[in-house]
Amino acid sequence: MAFKDECAVFGMWNDPEAARMTYLGLYAQQHRGQESTGIVSLNNKKHLNRKGMGLVGDVFSEEDLDGLVGSAAIGHNRYSTTGESLLSNVQPLTATLSCGPVAIAHNGNIVNGATIREELIKEGAIFQGTSDTELVLHLMARRPEKNVIECLKGALQRLEGAFSMVILTSKKLIAVRDTYGFRPLVIGERTREGSKALLVASETCAFDLIGAQYRDEVKPGEIWWVDEEGEHREEFKAPKEKTAHCIFEHVYFARPDSIVFDESVYESRKRMGAVLSEEHPVEADVVIPVPDSGVPAALGYSARSGIPFEMGIIRNHYIGRTFIQPSPSIRSFGVKIKLNAQSSVLKGKRVIIIDDSIVRGTTSQKIIRLVRNAGAKEVHFRVASPPTTGPCFYGVDTPKRQQLIASEKSEKEICEFIGADTLGYLSPDGMHKAVNAGERGFCAACFTGDYPTEIPD
Amino acid sequence: MAFKDECAVFGMWNDPEAARMTYLGLYAQQHRGQESTGIVSLNNKKHLNRKGMGLVGDVFSEEDLDGLVGSAAIGHNRYSTTGESLLSNVQPLTATLSCGPVAIAHNGNIVNGATIREELIKEGAIFQGTSDTELVLHLMARRPEKNVIECLKGALQRLEGAFSMVILTSKKLIAVRDTYGFRPLVIGERTREGSKALLVASETCAFDLIGAQYRDEVKPGEIWWVDEEGEHREEFKAPKEKTAHCIFEHVYFARPDSIVFDESVYESRKRMGAVLSEEHPVEADVVIPVPDSGVPAALGYSARSGIPFEMGIIRNHYIGRTFIQPSPSIRSFGVKIKLNAQSSVLKGKRVIIIDDSIVRGTTSQKIIRLVRNAGAKEVHFRVASPPTTGPCFYGVDTPKRQQLIASEKSEKEICEFIGADTLGYLSPDGMHKAVNAGERGFCAACFTGDYPTEIPD
Amino acid sequence: MAFKDECAVFGMWNDPEAARMTYLGLYAQQHRGQESTGIVSLNNKKHLNRKGMGLVGDVFSEEDLDGLVGSAAIGHNRYSTTGESLLSNVQPLTATLSCGPVAIAHNGNIVNGATIREELIKEGAIFQGTSDTELVLHLMARRPEKNVIECLKGALQRLEGAFSMVILTSKKLIAVRDTYGFRPLVIGERTREGSKALLVASETCAFDLIGAQYRDEVKPGEIWWVDEEGEHREEFKAPKEKTAHCIFEHVYFARPDSIVFDESVYESRKRMGAVLSEEHPVEADVVIPVPDSGVPAALGYSARSGIPFEMGIIRNHYIGRTFIQPSPSIRSFGVKIKLNAQSSVLKGKRVIIIDDSIVRGTTSQKIIRLVRNAGAKEVHFRVASPPTTGPCFYGVDTPKRQQLIASEKSEKEICEFIGADTLGYLSPDGMHKAVNAGERGFCAACFTGDYPTEIPD
Amino acid sequence: MAFKDECAVFGMWNDPEAARMTYLGLYAQQHRGQESTGIVSLNNKKHLNRKGMGLVGDVFSEEDLDGLVGSAAIGHNRYSTTGESLLSNVQPLTATLSCGPVAIAHNGNIVNGATIREELIKEGAIFQGTSDTELVLHLMARRPEKNVIECLKGALQRLEGAFSMVILTSKKLIAVRDTYGFRPLVIGERTREGSKALLVASETCAFDLIGAQYRDEVKPGEIWWVDEEGEHREEFKAPKEKTAHCIFEHVYFARPDSIVFDESVYESRKRMGAVLSEEHPVEADVVIPVPDSGVPAALGYSARSGIPFEMGIIRNHYIGRTFIQPSPSIRSFGVKIKLNAQSSVLKGKRVIIIDDSIVRGTTSQKIIRLVRNAGAKEVHFRVASPPTTGPCFYGVDTPKRQQLIASEKSEKEICEFIGADTLGYLSPDGMHKAVNAGERGFCAACFTGDYPTEIPD
Repeated sequence: MAFKDECAVFGMWNDPEAARMTYLGLYAQQHRGQESTGIVSLNNKKHLNRKGMGLVGDVFSEEDLDGLVGSAAIGHNRYSTTGESLLSNVQPLTATLSCGPVAIAHNGNIVNGATIREELIKEGAIFQGTSDTELVLHLMARRPEKNVIECLKGALQRLEGAFSMVILTSKKLIAVRDTYGFRPLVIGERTREGSKALLVASETCAFDLIGAQYRDEVKPGEIWWVDEEGEHREEFKAPKEKTAHCIFEHVYFARPDSIVFDESVYESRKRMGAVLSEEHPVEADVVIPVPDSGVPAALGYSARSGIPFEMGIIRNHYIGRTFIQPSPSIRSFGVKIKLNAQSSVLKGKRVIIIDDSIVRGTTSQKIIRLVRNAGAKEVHFRVASPPTTGPCFYGVDTPKRQQLIASEKSEKEICEFIGADTLGYLSPDGMHKAVNAGERGFCAACFTGDYPTEIPD
Repeated sequence: MAFKDECAVFGMWNDPEAARMTYLGLYAQQHRGQESTGIVSLNNKKHLNRKGMGLVGDVFSEEDLDGLVGSAAIGHNRYSTTGESLLSNVQPLTATLSCGPVAIAHNGNIVNGATIREELIKEGAIFQGTSDTELVLHLMARRPEKNVIECLKGALQRLEGAFSMVILTSKKLIAVRDTYGFRPLVIGERTREGSKALLVASETCAFDLIGAQYRDEVKPGEIWWVDEEGEHREEFKAPKEKTAHCIFEHVYFARPDSIVFDESVYESRKRMGAVLSEEHPVEADVVIPVPDSGVPAALGYSARSGIPFEMGIIRNHYIGRTFIQPSPSIRSFGVKIKLNAQSSVLKGKRVIIIDDSIVRGTTSQKIIRLVRNAGAKEVHFRVASPPTTGPCFYGVDTPKRQQLIASEKSEKEICEFIGADTLGYLSPDGMHKAVNAGERGFCAACFTGDYPTEIPD
Repeated sequence: MAFKDECAVFGMWNDPEAARMTYLGLYAQQHRGQESTGIVSLNNKKHLNRKGMGLVGDVFSEEDLDGLVGSAAIGHNRYSTTGESLLSNVQPLTATLSCGPVAIAHNGNIVNGATIREELIKEGAIFQGTSDTELVLHLMARRPEKNVIECLKGALQRLEGAFSMVILTSKKLIAVRDTYGFRPLVIGERTREGSKALLVASETCAFDLIGAQYRDEVKPGEIWWVDEEGEHREEFKAPKEKTAHCIFEHVYFARPDSIVFDESVYESRKRMGAVLSEEHPVEADVVIPVPDSGVPAALGYSARSGIPFEMGIIRNHYIGRTFIQPSPSIRSFGVKIKLNAQSSVLKGKRVIIIDDSIVRGTTSQKIIRLVRNAGAKEVHFRVASPPTTGPCFYGVDTPKRQQLIASEKSEKEICEFIGADTLGYLSPDGMHKAVNAGERGFCAACFTGDYPTEIPD
Repeated sequence: MAFKDECAVFGMWNDPEAARMTYLGLYAQQHRGQESTGIVSLNNKKHLNRKGMGLVGDVFSEEDLDGLVGSAAIGHNRYSTTGESLLSNVQPLTATLSCGPVAIAHNGNIVNGATIREELIKEGAIFQGTSDTELVLHLMARRPEKNVIECLKGALQRLEGAFSMVILTSKKLIAVRDTYGFRPLVIGERTREGSKALLVASETCAFDLIGAQYRDEVKPGEIWWVDEEGEHREEFKAPKEKTAHCIFEHVYFARPDSIVFDESVYESRKRMGAVLSEEHPVEADVVIPVPDSGVPAALGYSARSGIPFEMGIIRNHYIGRTFIQPSPSIRSFGVKIKLNAQSSVLKGKRVIIIDDSIVRGTTSQKIIRLVRNAGAKEVHFRVASPPTTGPCFYGVDTPKRQQLIASEKSEKEICEFIGADTLGYLSPDGMHKAVNAGERGFCAACFTGDYPTEIPD
């Protein structure tokens, strides 16, 4: 309930309504970025472009989509992790290079971005915005290769860190993913009236909305593209021996109805709840989730423990964009405006609350206060992930280390701070088990401090 | 999932932040009306006024609330049932009568409204809008009584039908409820720094948000008011022998975390699900709700039947105000933009879907198609209320009779139409049992055709 | 340059584009009111309605005008003189009376308005706004007559003061003018493809824009109307022996290209300048107007005196609605943003400045300072009207008496205050001569204190 | 009345309210560009930036100006001549080069812009917009010089055509003007509380508004700058033997109250009218201008010929941004909405109409029709410039040659087309005489076809 999302990418090739489908693909992935959004379509080897600050449903008008003609398009939802909130940072970024127009949408974070930027400025490059994505355009602009794919491959050699990118040129839709496979990037297809369209997206839920089928992932270190001659895929750089899939996608980011890293997110979360109930059992009358993100884990906890599941906390879905705060006289107001605890379910009960994570601890504290005020006799807080102790350098906007309660306090102190009777975190091993990690590597650095790459200053 | 909500009222007396609390009270009751909203505050015996078309969070600015000074206020959320969508219909309506300024917020429908309006126009009354509420102002304006309470009592004798009103004069906060008690109207209190504020609202969830306590209901036929001399309550007209509480409040309208007609809505709905499982059992692997309104009934069904509960359908909460439709090529698109079915839960399973009601049948049809496409082997549709066969004349915006599938088709035909393997509706008796009706009377006319009043032409 | 304008009315009968013509008629009369505007059209005996705060060009969209179908329409531009700036005061006001829908647009001020309002409230009338115009609707609503014309005539007997009204019912376009003829009200006609349309307006410039011909005035005390049976005119009350036409229409309000009270405004103003040059001659090198309102008088002064006319002050026409003030460091800034003095014309010259009037004196002071800074050797200020000493009760928004410099200071003191070398005002007699008053009576009360009616408290 | 304006630049150094003064300087120069506007201020060696599409008064809020802290600033108003109407083209353009932040505002047109752009793209430059101004930034970014002035001088060597630029770096305010001196660029100063501020602008009217004094021009081929060490000026390239000042600035563009190329525009225009009366005398009763641009020439014509000057055509100043057209039934509607002819001045008269130029001829045709309809007996059309026959390549947005009536028709045919009794154009020699050309060279290529530079394809 506490991490800001990052970004979503989407691309479609060979559909007469490519821009509208991209609109829908971005709509389905709105949870990954609400700050700004943009679509670029390809018409007659030229790019058309609409973007703006705000939600997908607010930024694009019917007229905008009508204007984005063409049978290929890419799009982006952004929550800024690098680069300020400026219109000039809104993606897809576009430029006309000597190989023609190029548009890029990017999810991730380039670890050596600052170094590359400095070098490019010295060489006379002019930057319009502050996002990492612009680096890729400049690197491409300076490559000698005439062929776009070769030119891009050359540019990619310089990048270190996390990137899942979708690129549109005058003739191709391209997708690339870093050698660690940090962020998800999936390929889908959809056949309409005998004609097959290809799609790329951050999450499979984007395919579901438009009736497309999930096929497979863009592999770590792979460049995938489609053009008039068909579909191609190559390795642009050898993948790391062990992947570093972001485990937080399963813990919190991704929509529960998505398949991420080839696993159902909903099922992963249910298993997290089940393992949690084994690791931290407690006698109680009722299991309740912090809605909506805690629901699958609470179902898993309930099923495994046999303790009944109830919606003891109701979420108000009419939260508008602006909300005017009252004077501080109302306790726990910030939480109350979203959540209400139900006496009829909680009065006199021993209650287990399931949440996906604890960040600063203040929200958990307020939720527990709500639940106690509604009459709960005991409150047992269970967290479906390990204590969050470190920042992310790969595209997730975590608070600074000092703000993470688990990097400053012991579990006992946290339990006291949030006002629970008992507190239990899922163990790192339990989490890996729950996502069916098996042989695949996951990056859990924000929980464990084990960063798979060098860390920038 | 198919009826439009009606209206919410709110009023507060003796709080230094009365308008801000009213803002919050309306915010918590947004589900009862999203078309327009307004607040009137009382300052120095004068009324201050802000209103507009749209959601509470969008209509009022910080500046607006700062401008609404005073320690008493009333507010209203509207979904038009009578009267068109005009700014001049936005409530609270205000007028300066010879007894001073009067502001009214109303939930319900005056059955003899058209007749009264005609008479008043003949007598020279000028109407600005088309809402029923304006009638009350005109009736009051024509009364000889100088005392506001007497004047109002006189006016109320003319009204027939459903009304729960909150009124603010230059010196009093007043609440009145029709003699049937159709719509809810509750009284709360809140003590801050030794000073007690009194509140009225449509639903108790408004009290929860601002930390106030639910006390009791305004009784059918009662006029309740508070002024400098304290709290008063009288009968303005003898209540009907049997109340006619709107059962649809429990079935669908009210927030699950509200207490309505002295019963928890969440618990009523769970019991509806439980009784439904007794009335229409079926062998199956999983029970899934149509989110969010079907969740409590599905939990009740699951608990009573022992069949596991799962969130087999995920709701997308980023539905903006405007949504641009794609070409009709995507099947069931309208439902898909809000709901996605999860293969991981449904594949190869025998599925029971729980919804609160069926109106036209088209949405149910699309949901069943989604669930089957996600791999369900069997689909059993269970409805936590009886077949809806008639319109409402007491403030609920039901479709016309011909559009109600249950008034045109048999259950067998409906089952076929929506594409379910089996279909089961809760019986009227089961529904009354679930709401713990006991001695109290409920209006279930939309299910049974038994209208408690005469019906207007 | 200093009085706020009042209002404009417009009406058209029998034109397939009645609402669009009304839009244009209001556009041409925008100078008479910039606060709000509205149009009501008549379609199938029903009224359609669009109104809003702001300029004609901003309030109405193409869609609005398309929606205002019908072959008759009326419209109004408003600058509030009575009644606050509320949307509920925007005219035309509309109501459904027992004789059908009535819409009214009004220019003027009802002197006994407060008294009538009080009486009506005692009788149970409910007012929505604070404008005088609403009184007429209520008076009509209470009349026993079934015939609209008789009903209106009855209502008009109660009104005292200034009114030029245009009224649209379900079958008629009506125009009425008070017995003094304070405000202008003209009738025009236009023949297109053999079909004759009739029009009413405040000023003839509205007819010019749409290619209609000015025919005559609605007479003082007259009710004029047109319906399916043709054109009619009657006296509803005996006109005053002597008219009281507002002389300020000629001095400042009306557009120079209008015919008002049967005289060309441009020619009146030129004659004011000519008479002024006879009454206050002075040796000088150049005559310059304060643009734009002083231009005709300056041309008249120049022609009569033989001193050359120059545009010594240039007006910047890009004055937007909002203007952000700099710190007070720039002298005379408020005037400078609109006006700039030209050295090339003024340097070393003896300059006569012509303005239409002086209100507070501060603007004149700043203009003289501008002209001196541009190098003028002498500055002679000439005013094409007498000293303004009193408020208007007939629809002109004059400042309070204390703010009128001429009611507080002698001419010599004013000359000193504004910093001129000499100052000359047109005499009242000269002004009457300039407007060719002849036998007709003019109200010049704001200059002379001679109010033609009783003055309200 | 027919050419679109081009651009305005402004810059100020050493004033605590630099951004507010720039706002005013742009406001005064709004006539030179209404499409977009922007301001960049210098604070602590960093640039702050606000820009947007629209008028100065609409784009900037109080908050914007408060945010633009710093004692130096530059600004720009734009009417696009090169580069589409995109936000990314709104000036000042900014970039961070290795020598620090640079912001540029530009008026003119780079004749070899397309060639330079192509070269730069080949070298890996990425362009964000399509305006010429961006070229300068890229040329600077690629220069080896560390010193900003040297770097800029180097870049300027590549540019051919018309440019008057204002540049802000982290330490300097710079102004440069091409070697022909096509566009105006003036220097001013203003002393407040003992501290002297320096200013640059396109026109002197910008200085008048803020109380600054015009001092001199930036010379052709000159680079002028000011920094902490004071004021400097050098030649960056030898000026052409003969200047090529744009004569259209005097004919139409510039505000009449500006001094342009060291001559008063108002006086130039008056002289154009005077010479015109000598070249094309005619017996008539009245001389009337097409307002507002024809006013000075009409005064000159009247003074020289002795025929009285009148405002026979009145301009409506309430022309909003959007105007909804009526059906084509109203003749000459487009002109009527802005202009109205006065019968009282024109009826039965022989009329001379003075306009600054004729472009397509359609507007002149409509004006003559208006004047005849108002009763004129004869209409003699006099144009205060020669026939416009060619396009401009130096920053003026002229229509294509085929749309220029004078490039397609003889004077006799034009006279017939516009419906005048006689037609007379000012001769090229007369025009040069009127602007006191003397030894200075003027570019009159749009009248004569004599282009001072090579013409791009």
